[in-house]
Amino acid sequence: MPREITAYSNPLIKRVRTLREKRHRREEGLFLAEGLRILTEAREAGRIPHYLFFARDSAAHPLVQVLVEAVEAAGGEAIETVPDILSKLSGKDNPQAVVGVFAEFTQTLDDLDRGTSPIWLVAERLRDPGNLGTILRTGDAVGAGGLILIGECVDPFSVEAVRASMGALFTVPVVQCEWDAFVPWLRRGPGQLVGLSLDTTTDYRAAAYSAPTFLLTGNEAQGMPADYAAACDTLVKIPMLGKADSLNAAVATAVMAYQVLDAVKGR
Amino acid sequence: MPREITAYSNPLIKRVRTLREKRHRREEGLFLAEGLRILTEAREAGRIPHYLFFARDSAAHPLVQVLVEAVEAAGGEAIETVPDILSKLSGKDNPQAVVGVFAEFTQTLDDLDRGTSPIWLVAERLRDPGNLGTILRTGDAVGAGGLILIGECVDPFSVEAVRASMGALFTVPVVQCEWDAFVPWLRRGPGQLVGLSLDTTTDYRAAAYSAPTFLLTGNEAQGMPADYAAACDTLVKIPMLGKADSLNAAVATAVMAYQVLDAVKGR
Repeated sequence: MPREITAYSNPLIKRVRTLREKRHRREEGLFLAEGLRILTEAREAGRIPHYLFFARDSAAHPLVQVLVEAVEAAGGEAIETVPDILSKLSGKDNPQAVVGVFAEFTQTLDDLDRGTSPIWLVAERLRDPGNLGTILRTGDAVGAGGLILIGECVDPFSVEAVRASMGALFTVPVVQCEWDAFVPWLRRGPGQLVGLSLDTTTDYRAAAYSAPTFLLTGNEAQGMPADYAAACDTLVKIPMLGKADSLNAAVATAVMAYQVLDAVKGR
Repeated sequence: MPREITAYSNPLIKRVRTLREKRHRREEGLFLAEGLRILTEAREAGRIPHYLFFARDSAAHPLVQVLVEAVEAAGGEAIETVPDILSKLSGKDNPQAVVGVFAEFTQTLDDLDRGTSPIWLVAERLRDPGNLGTILRTGDAVGAGGLILIGECVDPFSVEAVRASMGALFTVPVVQCEWDAFVPWLRRGPGQLVGLSLDTTTDYRAAAYSAPTFLLTGNEAQGMPADYAAACDTLVKIPMLGKADSLNAAVATAVMAYQVLDAVKGR
């Protein structure tokens, strides 16, 4: 039976709230995800929260009941609470019906099997959590084998990244590594490294792609360093007809990813 | 000569801070934009702020000097201030070097000339300011004639939307209107209304597009109403291979927009 917590001062509520900060996530090895859709996605991917907080008035919702059962069967704890506390946990004025506390999961390059997908996403020094989550969501949509984060990227377990991923954090493998580890790993097997760049005349529609394609997106403000660009097999440019000559990093990644998908699938 | 303000209690600072709220923006007819890049984009598009706040230590920056001159020549006021106040104005811990207060500008459907571009973006009940700004930025990149916002959309002059647009708010015409005004306007001239939908089997790559194409994106959570879909000339679907069967609205708009651009330009 779920216990009930209605006081802000409850130590578990205080502890869970601290998970909004990266330092506490790393210390505890835990992170927050919210919303029925995302938690259901997680459950279907085999990720069950250690703690599940749900609003009293959504206790009867069938998806909430399935989650509560899954959490209790896995030895976790389901906790009934009030909207105000859900707001505090999620940092949103209109809280979702559920908030889950999950164990962080990590993968390494050696865990990845590049034969599982024709397309892989790679981002370096990605700084915006919304962009990271959105790229994961795109990764799910194009069936990417995974997202490889190079260098100092924003935390994929941040509340904002998890939210923007709409659950794709649970379905798309994420690896965090350094460039100096990525390139040797990449070159030990098949794979075309395609960099998105403004410093090329090759139109992204005109380039040849071969599976598995690793699509590299650079930092939002600066793009990728020259030596990263030099290490790419192909540099391509998305044409821009406007004044600003720029696209959002997650948008550019998606436009490229759908082009590559089309090319390598030979549709 | 710029005057200097260093006190939070200054009435102008207090007044400008209120512009972070929609109600005050509407009352004053003013909005905030921040950052050298965005304000320079605005200046090049002929939009000069009424007030320009800049950090003392960036006063020597050539782009700041150009902005200060433009503001003073236009009868506005340039104000030197401190980083803490810029933080308060922009709501960011690491403030940009400049914050501008601009007059809101509006256009109506009748101001639009559909002959100016082969592609137009239309969004209905768009709720996320980041998505709105990102769609504007994409609109700039694909050379869209404008963005038409249908129904209860988020405010394009919100701080987050302006920020995400990276200046495209100043270069891409924006019209806010109701569906019942949009459809008659559309049908009074040439134009193919293409709706992005999950309820069709037509692949977005397989559809025929003809200029001017009006690309309709539905609400982030619900998609578009059935009667809006029925009013479209063509419904298309972006294939999704993953678990979630969803893409971020700004991402989906961009993938579509680049496909349409390619088709109508006959590259």
